[in-house]
Amino acid sequence: MLVCACSASKYFGRKLAKATGSGYLEIETRRFPDGELYVRVCGDVAGESVVLVQSMYKEPNDRLVEYLLTARTIKELGAEALIGVVPYLPYARQDARFKPGEAVSLEIVLDLLAHAGTDRLVVVDAHLHRVPDLSEISRIPVHNLTVMDRLGEYLRANLDLSEPLVLAPDEEAEQWAKVVAEILGTDYRALSKERLGDREVSVAGELELEERDAVIVDDIISTGGTTAAAARLAKEAGARKVVAACSHAILALGAEHRIFSAGVEELVASDTVPSPYSVVSAVPPVAGLLEKIAGS
Amino acid sequence: MLVCACSASKYFGRKLAKATGSGYLEIETRRFPDGELYVRVCGDVAGESVVLVQSMYKEPNDRLVEYLLTARTIKELGAEALIGVVPYLPYARQDARFKPGEAVSLEIVLDLLAHAGTDRLVVVDAHLHRVPDLSEISRIPVHNLTVMDRLGEYLRANLDLSEPLVLAPDEEAEQWAKVVAEILGTDYRALSKERLGDREVSVAGELELEERDAVIVDDIISTGGTTAAAARLAKEAGARKVVAACSHAILALGAEHRIFSAGVEELVASDTVPSPYSVVSAVPPVAGLLEKIAGS
Amino acid sequence: MLVCACSASKYFGRKLAKATGSGYLEIETRRFPDGELYVRVCGDVAGESVVLVQSMYKEPNDRLVEYLLTARTIKELGAEALIGVVPYLPYARQDARFKPGEAVSLEIVLDLLAHAGTDRLVVVDAHLHRVPDLSEISRIPVHNLTVMDRLGEYLRANLDLSEPLVLAPDEEAEQWAKVVAEILGTDYRALSKERLGDREVSVAGELELEERDAVIVDDIISTGGTTAAAARLAKEAGARKVVAACSHAILALGAEHRIFSAGVEELVASDTVPSPYSVVSAVPPVAGLLEKIAGS
Amino acid sequence: MLVCACSASKYFGRKLAKATGSGYLEIETRRFPDGELYVRVCGDVAGESVVLVQSMYKEPNDRLVEYLLTARTIKELGAEALIGVVPYLPYARQDARFKPGEAVSLEIVLDLLAHAGTDRLVVVDAHLHRVPDLSEISRIPVHNLTVMDRLGEYLRANLDLSEPLVLAPDEEAEQWAKVVAEILGTDYRALSKERLGDREVSVAGELELEERDAVIVDDIISTGGTTAAAARLAKEAGARKVVAACSHAILALGAEHRIFSAGVEELVASDTVPSPYSVVSAVPPVAGLLEKIAGS
Repeated sequence: MLVCACSASKYFGRKLAKATGSGYLEIETRRFPDGELYVRVCGDVAGESVVLVQSMYKEPNDRLVEYLLTARTIKELGAEALIGVVPYLPYARQDARFKPGEAVSLEIVLDLLAHAGTDRLVVVDAHLHRVPDLSEISRIPVHNLTVMDRLGEYLRANLDLSEPLVLAPDEEAEQWAKVVAEILGTDYRALSKERLGDREVSVAGELELEERDAVIVDDIISTGGTTAAAARLAKEAGARKVVAACSHAILALGAEHRIFSAGVEELVASDTVPSPYSVVSAVPPVAGLLEKIAGS
Repeated sequence: MLVCACSASKYFGRKLAKATGSGYLEIETRRFPDGELYVRVCGDVAGESVVLVQSMYKEPNDRLVEYLLTARTIKELGAEALIGVVPYLPYARQDARFKPGEAVSLEIVLDLLAHAGTDRLVVVDAHLHRVPDLSEISRIPVHNLTVMDRLGEYLRANLDLSEPLVLAPDEEAEQWAKVVAEILGTDYRALSKERLGDREVSVAGELELEERDAVIVDDIISTGGTTAAAARLAKEAGARKVVAACSHAILALGAEHRIFSAGVEELVASDTVPSPYSVVSAVPPVAGLLEKIAGS
Repeated sequence: MLVCACSASKYFGRKLAKATGSGYLEIETRRFPDGELYVRVCGDVAGESVVLVQSMYKEPNDRLVEYLLTARTIKELGAEALIGVVPYLPYARQDARFKPGEAVSLEIVLDLLAHAGTDRLVVVDAHLHRVPDLSEISRIPVHNLTVMDRLGEYLRANLDLSEPLVLAPDEEAEQWAKVVAEILGTDYRALSKERLGDREVSVAGELELEERDAVIVDDIISTGGTTAAAARLAKEAGARKVVAACSHAILALGAEHRIFSAGVEELVASDTVPSPYSVVSAVPPVAGLLEKIAGS
Repeated sequence: MLVCACSASKYFGRKLAKATGSGYLEIETRRFPDGELYVRVCGDVAGESVVLVQSMYKEPNDRLVEYLLTARTIKELGAEALIGVVPYLPYARQDARFKPGEAVSLEIVLDLLAHAGTDRLVVVDAHLHRVPDLSEISRIPVHNLTVMDRLGEYLRANLDLSEPLVLAPDEEAEQWAKVVAEILGTDYRALSKERLGDREVSVAGELELEERDAVIVDDIISTGGTTAAAARLAKEAGARKVVAACSHAILALGAEHRIFSAGVEELVASDTVPSPYSVVSAVPPVAGLLEKIAGS
């Protein structure tokens, strides 16, 4: 097995190669002055099983196209199998045609990944609302791993939480709140969220948090609006300390202000989206899965 | 026939609908705070023959992904046929594997366009070096139209050129120099270009231009390095006035300084890449082709 | 007088030099791979009166910093006077501290332009709401020119308007509606606008437009929300044809869809922000002012 | 003392407030659809001594303008003193007019920081070539702190280096190589670098590295060209293992491939530019200095 990575995930790829004891294959990517990408696979992949890592945060289209160019080339060069590792899978929100005529972007992106030669896809805490298993809407098997247990362990080991209540800001996040609550040995609650626009949400739920800390758990923090709304609710309910944990800290401009000014004292996230808040790594679960696949 | 356009080519699409007497279909595109695109086809396309326009300049990856999302959705909504109009086709440079392991981006992009549901592709003055006809490397028919005749007519009608010599900065541009020279009723010469890096070129050729103007003709001006080198050569050869004409004025940061400081006095281009230099339109040739296709 | 231009306004600068019969001075700007700009003034400016043009649209911060680097350098190199021409002046909206603690960005930007060595500033149709004259809040004289008369003339000469009513979407735009109405020889109306967020507005007013065309006039079209709201109101009031005219067509992603799907049939703008809709030029009024200044 | 931070350094600012036991002041920054920034200081700063943090990497102009808007506003709101902390100071390269007419960007940027109301500036490992002390070319005192000792300690504690030789890729980096060499208890060598373009360099020096590891030390890794050239030289000289350490890991697209494919096995950097390679923090030295200033 050979591991390689596109430009957004060089660090992840190198750690993954080490963790799985695989060879690391260099991929050269440059950008021309006109914005086009140049991609070169720097090694022999003929007959190999290749793992290609690219997390698609912040400039999702640039990163998707880079992946498509690289994956297709790896296959053209004779790789036997290609496992795509996309720690942060974009476009997961648009998993249905809510209004007539909308692009179902999630399905289109999954199809593009498969079409480029990906035989098997590995993602981390994909934002699944209406589709319980990505494999159902994909031509190739999709493995959806989680870092929530690692975030839970980190919270338990490093934050001195007092009788924490784990909060899911909406129903979809309940699954993750449950995992974290179990590790912290405490209870959890799902709030109900209403989206008021691309950037605004309201979160509701009756809470009693006197003398307790609150841990808000979600898959993605993008604008921070949801986390901020949940934090304000927790503070109003008397919470002592509020912390937030997420798999993917996208943190669009303004998000940090939004969540910290709402009362969040600590933010922890994984390295699927590298940031100063990346305290746990998604490399071990990915490595574990790859070893299982290789061994089967 | 219905005409619609992605975000980079709304103007082109609306003019094209008028020129062909077709209905115009609205496409809504928004960008979420995390960089993802939202696409919605605002109308009924079932059973229709749809023309989708998107010129892919400056942010080629963003524009390619937007096209892929839109095209696929149009097909899913039941369009009978989809004609893709890509006035500026990116990635045309990388039409071969020059070094082992390189992505042959042009082939991959053409395949993506076809895979998204495009049944027929229309491009303008595609940068073809080694592949004489894009249809040869594409699963779908590709029509490569030209605006060089229009640029030639514009030069003849609006610039007071004195005994002009038309210059092609390299062999590939000779085809376009010939067209312009014929319209101007004069001769042309192809120079020989050597690429010294992503941003540097040298251009050579023996020229005698005393008392003559020079018209440099090329398909794309990106960094302006090639045009600038040709202009310097023309000035050294005694040219009176130097003007430059190109189909696609990409004009990366610094390009205008480069070409104007090399002695170019006037720059003219088409509207495949909108700029203050867009003096002729690619709409009429595209409209003409669409009418021919519709009539056949 | 020497005219020169930063990277966003090379075309404007060259036309301005021609229109005023001034020398044109080359400015070289490059971008390093780390995002920093390199600026070089390519000529002798000692003792000269220099005009520096930079329109600050789309990437206002990049363009502002480029201007500051260039202006300061021109002064350090001994220019006697520096006239800054900023066809599109950004940050004009934030001309007061609406909430405690807000940056009054307009004043800060004007101060930066002065601090960089600008002795006199020329802008076009600046978005003035609360400040009637920019000179009042600037350390240097500011000339606020207009292209509204040119837009009016264009509309009269090129669009076959039937009994048009000119609409100002809000009170601030009334001044421009008046100018255009006079040229068209017709009446105008100001609507009342309410801002509901960064991207949403509502526009109200009682209109009777049966058998009449509507011409919506504003200084800037950014998201297109205001123009779209006015267009819908006009259509509801029975307007036959709706056209829109603005000085600065910023056109953020989605704006064109917004305004055209609201019923606008034609959009016209100036070249302060180059776009396919630039039908009139701000060069003549700027040239006229410069000649008056030079002659005084 | 109150600590606050612009959008690129929220994390740094919050850690700095904790480390110094200061209050943390929220700053709200948003971006309008037209690219302009909105800044609001969310608290009372009248009569206060305020520390404003903003590291200016990757989009240096955006970040500089955000700082200028924020700093000026803090002063307008009555802050008694403003200490600017710019962990990564951009434009340090252009500290002289190498060719006639060039902008001396470093001086201009320092002047802008002072003009915005900064009374004292704190930077980390500024790229000083010709100017030994930034205070000499600045109107305000500039403190140039270092994280090189922390990088040295990290290397000593965490990497199992065998008889390492510390390499400075050029003369300017010699100062840092010396610091790291002392901590590692070993010797160092400065190589001689020649710049061949914005993106290309050559590095020369006679080395004998059989059975030894090499530690390449520099202030900034931007394109990675210099580090890669030094790494290749080290490998050719027989180095066993090559690691690289820098204060600021800018890492433009392609840099990671460049340095890792040249033989670098490990890269370590500080959090002045957050990246997955940020293993040490610049917060402690900044906190130490602030306490000294406050105590004086």
